[in-house]
This record gives sequence, C-alpha cells and structure tokens, in this order.
Amino acid sequence: MLRKTRLFTPGPTPILPAAQTAMASFGMHHRTAEFRALFSKFLADLKVFVGTKNDVMVLASSGTGAMEAAVSNLTSSGDKVIVVTAGKFGERWTGLAKAYGCSIDVIDAPYGKTVKPEAVSARVKADTRVVYMQATESSTGARHDVQGIAKAVREKSPNTLLVVDAITGLGTTTFDVDGWGIDMLIGGSQKAVMIPPGLAYVSVSERAWQAMESAKSPRYYFDLRKERKSAANGESAFTPATSLIAAFAAALDYIASQAGGNLAAGREALIANAEMAAAMTRAAATALGLELFAAESPASALTAIVAPKEVDSGVLVKALREKFGAIVANGQGEMKGKMIRIAHLGYYDYLDTIAIIGALEQVLAGIAIPKHSEFGVGLKAAQVVYARGRA
Amino acid sequence: MLRKTRLFTPGPTPILPAAQTAMASFGMHHRTAEFRALFSKFLADLKVFVGTKNDVMVLASSGTGAMEAAVSNLTSSGDKVIVVTAGKFGERWTGLAKAYGCSIDVIDAPYGKTVKPEAVSARVKADTRVVYMQATESSTGARHDVQGIAKAVREKSPNTLLVVDAITGLGTTTFDVDGWGIDMLIGGSQKAVMIPPGLAYVSVSERAWQAMESAKSPRYYFDLRKERKSAANGESAFTPATSLIAAFAAALDYIASQAGGNLAAGREALIANAEMAAAMTRAAATALGLELFAAESPASALTAIVAPKEVDSGVLVKALREKFGAIVANGQGEMKGKMIRIAHLGYYDYLDTIAIIGALEQVLAGIAIPKHSEFGVGLKAAQVVYARGRA
Repeated sequence: MLRKTRLFTPGPTPILPAAQTAMASFGMHHRTAEFRALFSKFLADLKVFVGTKNDVMVLASSGTGAMEAAVSNLTSSGDKVIVVTAGKFGERWTGLAKAYGCSIDVIDAPYGKTVKPEAVSARVKADTRVVYMQATESSTGARHDVQGIAKAVREKSPNTLLVVDAITGLGTTTFDVDGWGIDMLIGGSQKAVMIPPGLAYVSVSERAWQAMESAKSPRYYFDLRKERKSAANGESAFTPATSLIAAFAAALDYIASQAGGNLAAGREALIANAEMAAAMTRAAATALGLELFAAESPASALTAIVAPKEVDSGVLVKALREKFGAIVANGQGEMKGKMIRIAHLGYYDYLDTIAIIGALEQVLAGIAIPKHSEFGVGLKAAQVVYARGRA
Repeated sequence: MLRKTRLFTPGPTPILPAAQTAMASFGMHHRTAEFRALFSKFLADLKVFVGTKNDVMVLASSGTGAMEAAVSNLTSSGDKVIVVTAGKFGERWTGLAKAYGCSIDVIDAPYGKTVKPEAVSARVKADTRVVYMQATESSTGARHDVQGIAKAVREKSPNTLLVVDAITGLGTTTFDVDGWGIDMLIGGSQKAVMIPPGLAYVSVSERAWQAMESAKSPRYYFDLRKERKSAANGESAFTPATSLIAAFAAALDYIASQAGGNLAAGREALIANAEMAAAMTRAAATALGLELFAAESPASALTAIVAPKEVDSGVLVKALREKFGAIVANGQGEMKGKMIRIAHLGYYDYLDTIAIIGALEQVLAGIAIPKHSEFGVGLKAAQVVYARGRA
C-alpha cells in the first residue's frame, strides 16, 4: 500500500494546514503598524492560551532558549536552586544551572517515575532562589504533579520562584498559572500548537520580573526585560521569526474555532483531545500485553510503551516507519532500545489514533511473539475507551 | 492602480517562492536519517556560500543570537575587546560586550562614515582578545573595510580574534574568510538568502574553536562547541527550526542554479546583482539631486538616501507605502526622519529596481520641491548604469 509519512513524535508534531498556508504567504516587515497590530493580538491570545494574566514573551529560539532565559534572567552565580528531575529534560535544567554557576540541589526520581511534592517540601529553604521542573517529561511519558509541587514551594518559601518547562505540557494538561503561583511557564512551537520548531514562549509573573532586577547572570538576546519593553509597543526586541508567528497566530485561531471562537475553551478541548488519544493508546498497549513506562502518572502528551523484552524497540520504530510511514520516537539516551513513544499533543484526531494502534498491531504481529500478536485486541480496547466518551 | 505590497527593507527581504513552497510542505522530524542527510548537505553548501573551509554553525535565533554567541563563546568577564562602530548595529556589539563584562575599547566613526584600518591598527594590542565589527552597517548604508581591518589586526596581534557581523554583508560583498583570517563571520536568514527571519549562521575558525576552551562566560543554548559536536553527526544540538532550514536549503539551490549549479559562482552572481541594483539606485538618487548618506563607502546591501531638507523622510516612507505598496525603511534612532533606506540584498531584479526608482520619482514629484521633481531623471540615470553593464 501507499505510505504517507506521518509524525507521531512528541515534537515536532503534524503541522496544521492553516498554519502552513499562513507561514508560506507571510511577508510582513516586523517594524510596521500592520505587524504591531498582529503581534499585539497574538500576544493577547497567547496569554489566554497559556491561561494567565501574566505577561507572555515570545523568543525566536527552540524551547531550550526559553529554559536558558529562565536561568540567566533569574539567577546570579552561586545562587541556590533546586532541580526536580526524572528524565532527560529534567537533566537539561541541571546543565543550564551549572552553566550559570548556580549551587544546585537535585531532587530526582527514577526514569518513568515522578518526584513527590513531599520530597520538594523537605528540601525547599527560604534561600532557595528557584525551583526548576518539567510539567511532562517527554523522555519518559510521565506527568509531574505541578500543582502539588507548586503548593509545596509556596508553603515552604513564599519568595522562591517556580519555573515549569511545559514545552510538552501546554495544550496537554491544565495549569492554573496564577492560582498555583507558577513564575515562569515555558512552551515551544513544535508541540501542541501544531507549527514547526523555532519559537519558544514563556509566561512571567510579577515576582519573576522583580527577581530579574537583582539577577546578575549575563544575558542579552534572551533578556526578558528587553522583550517586555518592546512587547508594550507591539514589537519584539530583536527580529522576530515572523513566518512562525503568523503560523502560530493561525493555530490559535484554529484552536479557538474548535470551541465557537472561545480560545480558553478551545485549549481545554485540545487538552481533552490529547487525553482521549492517550487513554485509547494506553488501553490498546495494555490490552496487547505491553507495559507502560510511566504507568503511575502517564502524561497525555505522549505514551511511552515498553517494548517486549524479546525485541529492541528500534525494530518497532523502523518497522512502523518502513511499512507504514509512521514516525514514532525511540527511547532517549540509556532508554534507547527499550521503548517507543507515541505522541498525542496537537493535531491528532480519532482516525490518527485508531490508525497508529492498527499499525502497531501489524508490526507486533510481524515479530510474532504470541502474547502480543492477536489482531484487534488493541483496537477493540481503544474503541471501548472512545465509546465511553471520557478519557 | 492596484498596490502589491513589496518589501524594499534591508531585512526582512522578499521571500523566494521556492523557499515558501519548501517551508510550507516540510514536516520532517529532525532526528531521522532523512533529516541528517539534508542537514549535512545544507551545512556543506553553506560553507561554500560563506566561502570558507571553516565550520559553519546554524542557530535557531535571529542574527543577534549569533552575535551573542560570538561574545559568550570567546570571552571571559574582564577580557579586553575592541568594538569598531559607526552605526546602530556597531552599538549592539558594545551592548553585548558590556552584558558579558568585557573591558571595551570603542573605536567609532560618525554615522555614515567608516572606521579606517589605521585607527584599528593604532589600538589593537597583544592582549586584545577580540575585535568586533560590521561588514556593512545597515543603519547607515556604509560598507566597512573588512579586508583592511583584518590586515591591521593580523599584523598587530596574530592571536587577536576578528569577528565580523556580516548579517547584511553576506551575499552583497565578497569575503576571503580564510585568507583574511576572519575568525567568525555572522549571517542571518532574512537577508540576502531570501527566507524569513529565524535562523542565524556563523563560520568559526580553528583559532576561535581553541579560544572557546579558555573562555569562561556562561553559555548553553548558544554554546557553539555543542553545535559542532552535533553537526558532525548531521544534527543540531537543540531542536532546529526545520521549516526555515528547508527554506534555506531551497534558497541555496536557487542561488547555485543562477550559475549552472555552481554555488560559489552563484554567490558572486548574487553579489553582482546587489551591486548593480545599488549602483542604479545611487545614480538615480544623485541625478534627482538627493544626497547619499554613506557616499564615501556605500554598501551594495542597501542605499541610504538623505531626504530633502524640506521634508521628514517619514513622509516619503509613508507615501511609498500608501500610494504604491512599497515598504522602504526610515532611519533608525536619531537618524529617523532624515533618510530612507532601500534594500538590494537578495531577491531583487532589474524590474524591481526600476520600479522602486519610478515610485520614488512619483513621491518626490508629489512633494513638489522643484529640484527633485523632474520625471525620468532618476530613471534615465539608472538605465545608463544598467546599459553600461557593470556596477
């Protein structure tokens, strides 16, 4: 049969057609009244999408650029910070904090697990400058307890800043940014918002803006104070990635259109969509006798499925790609060969979800391990979840 | 008449149609064999375009990100650096070097002029860590003497690093990167390479790679050593802006196609194209009794034309936009109101050049200052330059 290439990777994700069109046809100069109007509306919409009254800044960089901004803008060399980590992206916080000379207290959990709020509560001190964490750890498929950890931080030390990498979290799980007291929440363009990589965005609380005044780490391109000043005039401090901003604006319009033009409701519908796709996929994997890597607290952004012990997961990844054009992710680092990761964040519908489960059944049958090889078992389990009407 | 919106700004510049198509249809994951093959070929092509045997690294950021990389990767706090400046972008080097705590010796010239190599020669010392400069200063339209300054630096201090912001220089003027000893040469995507903003690129000499080992300024996202390591495997250290890379690759193919598939020759043809458009524009402006802002050493990237003293240049910018859809740049900062800037870098042809000169004649006639208002005078001068066949 024909093989259409389809991304089922937790970033980049499939591009929204309306965003492709917007991107290709956009040729506006960024220092014009037209662009200022577009950019101001986009920033206002983005606050609604993020779900905050705080400022949201946009950077021309991948998500790591915004993570760096959350270190360089908030810390000085020697500052005490806590990194909450249970995967490869948690480890990126450690690398960043180390690059800026912070004194780091790492609170970790094994890959696939999550750090409990009590563990954070026990370690946060009044002089902890920042706590860095992930909302969802896309290397393991786990969802962290942002609300619980935020509560622990707030109770123990009102002035400690909480920074959450929600690059795969935004649009897949609900945050009460202002209510929970998240000082920075970071997103990326190639995730639930259905556009190509190249933009990062970050919400910034008033407490974080104040902290920047005393933070001495060097920064220039990622200096968020510069961005805030420019954003007040509908501009960005440096040349913005205009084609991607046009695509992002089109994507937010699409998300709103899914709930009668209400962007906040559209975001919740997008989250519910990912939750349903994730629940269908988890049910299918379990029915096929496969183990979920992050079973205790699975994210809806993606599902990490442990490969049968008889087979390297690379064999499954390759077969899905070569037979069906379906691109799924392998494990990262030491998890390579042990799992496949299937994305649900962004532009996936019921047909996509059923289709990838069907492809997985075919590939498993090809490997011929009897207990994982019965056609229809995974698909049936997914159908039951869908018909039940809630994730 | 109809008004088609056309950019005549020195970045962003008009987008190549083949790049638009490539950008819109690209949906490849960046950790796949297909992307590694594309990215490796692209990086090899980019070396040819830049004209160097040195590595060329690509960053998902605007050009300022690569400028920051040239400071954070090469310096430690307290290092002595020289900034050669004669415009707004020269001043950006000062801002960056200050952010990283460098001890800065500024060698400046008035806006519109250039710094002479002798001035640099007199100030470079054996302990000067880096000299920062622009190839062309897009705020004034001046072309700096990169060759002369490179020679001055090399003669006075063999180990001093020379970093050239060629964001508007690349594809508009020829550099012998290796022969002159340029340690970093920086480019941006929204300039002569005819694609949207969002990518920066930078060539890195062996001397610069060595200097990074002793440079202590913090860096992570812009750590070029990480990029070099990843590039050896056909990858980028962080998620690349894939749609823009696809567009860039298409643009390099187009540039090569203009010289029978020879990219180096295509680059020279692109430079000659900008030089011809610039020469036509300068001749037209002069014939219309207008003064060139950087008359002593005009860049071919753009032409800065001083507005008649009777009129604020914003009136010309507005009339060109409102009557004809032609977007030209005003002066920046304290030069606002004093000049218009017309771009020649990238995707402009003979018809575009004649057309903008015609529009300028109409707008000047509308202002009715007799000595600048004779129809055909500017166009005729441009025609003569074109017919002569050399800029």
